[in-house]
Amino acid sequence: MPILHKDMQLCISLAARPSNIGTRFHNFLYDELGLDFVYKAFTTTDLRGAVAGIRALGIRGCSVSMPFKEDVIPLVDELEESARAIRSVNTVVNDGGVLTASNTDYEAVAALLDSHGVDRDARVLLRGSGGMAKAVTAAFRGAGFEHLTVVARNEATGSALADQYGYAWVDTEDRAGDADVLVNVTPLGMRGDEEATLSFAPERITAAHTVFDVVAFPAETPLVRAGRQAGASVITGAEVIALQAARQFERYTGVALTDDQVARASAFSREQ
Amino acid sequence: MPILHKDMQLCISLAARPSNIGTRFHNFLYDELGLDFVYKAFTTTDLRGAVAGIRALGIRGCSVSMPFKEDVIPLVDELEESARAIRSVNTVVNDGGVLTASNTDYEAVAALLDSHGVDRDARVLLRGSGGMAKAVTAAFRGAGFEHLTVVARNEATGSALADQYGYAWVDTEDRAGDADVLVNVTPLGMRGDEEATLSFAPERITAAHTVFDVVAFPAETPLVRAGRQAGASVITGAEVIALQAARQFERYTGVALTDDQVARASAFSREQ
Repeated sequence: MPILHKDMQLCISLAARPSNIGTRFHNFLYDELGLDFVYKAFTTTDLRGAVAGIRALGIRGCSVSMPFKEDVIPLVDELEESARAIRSVNTVVNDGGVLTASNTDYEAVAALLDSHGVDRDARVLLRGSGGMAKAVTAAFRGAGFEHLTVVARNEATGSALADQYGYAWVDTEDRAGDADVLVNVTPLGMRGDEEATLSFAPERITAAHTVFDVVAFPAETPLVRAGRQAGASVITGAEVIALQAARQFERYTGVALTDDQVARASAFSREQ
Repeated sequence: MPILHKDMQLCISLAARPSNIGTRFHNFLYDELGLDFVYKAFTTTDLRGAVAGIRALGIRGCSVSMPFKEDVIPLVDELEESARAIRSVNTVVNDGGVLTASNTDYEAVAALLDSHGVDRDARVLLRGSGGMAKAVTAAFRGAGFEHLTVVARNEATGSALADQYGYAWVDTEDRAGDADVLVNVTPLGMRGDEEATLSFAPERITAAHTVFDVVAFPAETPLVRAGRQAGASVITGAEVIALQAARQFERYTGVALTDDQVARASAFSREQ
């Protein structure tokens, strides 16, 4: 066993329903790299008390998930551009009591649009209007995409999201025009009740050159599978979750990860 | 490596200057017993925030050291008798947000007086008047010792301590009468500047049937060594620290430890 000792730095996560992913991802790499860090997921019903504890105990970093991504904003000291632009935080770093918040989901999506060479002139159809849809839509805007339509049944959140970034909104897929890039940011296709649901019409998938599913479990959703079968370029939620975790890791530890390290930690984190 | 996972319970310690002892003692036994716990020492300059964090993060237990043993009292919900009697806490257990405080130093000293069969009618000379001296003096009173003299140069703390438990106080050893039991609760003999200092006069050690040194590092202080050489019964600070940690362990985990487990965890905890 690695001997835990007093001078290790603790990183944590806060979520209503913690998963094991972050705990496995970060500890795998701490061990491999011999870093004096330990990571553990937490839940809380008292976000203010939890952040007080982060400061008072010198907890080095905190991953922030639903439903705390907006509520944590008034509790930190500094917002990086990635969090300020979308008023949503998924990462808090503690430098001697000064808490700086950022959004590595936003950064990860922006980086994937770039590394996958997605054409900025493409016509994008994005399904969803929740917190993660905001991060993804903002990343498309930040990357210079001009043609994006938000598909969301909820007019209040859907049209507000579209308006915020100067995009169009429609309530159903049928009302949208042709699209080159399909992006799912809903739970459709996620392990559970909606696991078998394809998040876009098959004919749209055939017509698209890129499909992007933010659902991370399973890695192969119906959309991802159909996109691959249709020969489209595919970006998966597994890539997003691994890359955003890598960006957190780098902020917490100061250590930049190789693609291979990220891939192996991601595979380990998904084993259970 | 043991795979850390999200459902592990965290126990911590809070001290101005954390040592590695607790972290090694508890994690050694978590590993040996296969318990889903992890332990780490912390320091803080904001006790209130740290306790808020214990509640908000559901941290299972917290060992409390100097200088927080009294200040933590108004921050918890319940005081067990061991803590109430001496207004000093070294252990906090969190049961679903309800914090219960106790003092396992007191309990450990009381248990050692019992297991070593120290005669209740003995004349006791106890040197010291700090926080730990209070726990030790209270344990002698609780065990029914009638004849105890506190030796402390500081009249304010020394006489107050003696008065509180109905004992006598003297400012120097010379002014005390004969004693059967010698108890050191000062830093004399502790690793550092006072390492070579014998905490009682050699002729007192020769005359005593029991010597008890609360100093835990090194395990063999000048007093312990002299006591053994004189053929006295000896109680060491290493026993106190191990037994009080075992009582904390049992409160946090619900698992009672064997003497062998305590001895091996204690030996491991002292290796560095």
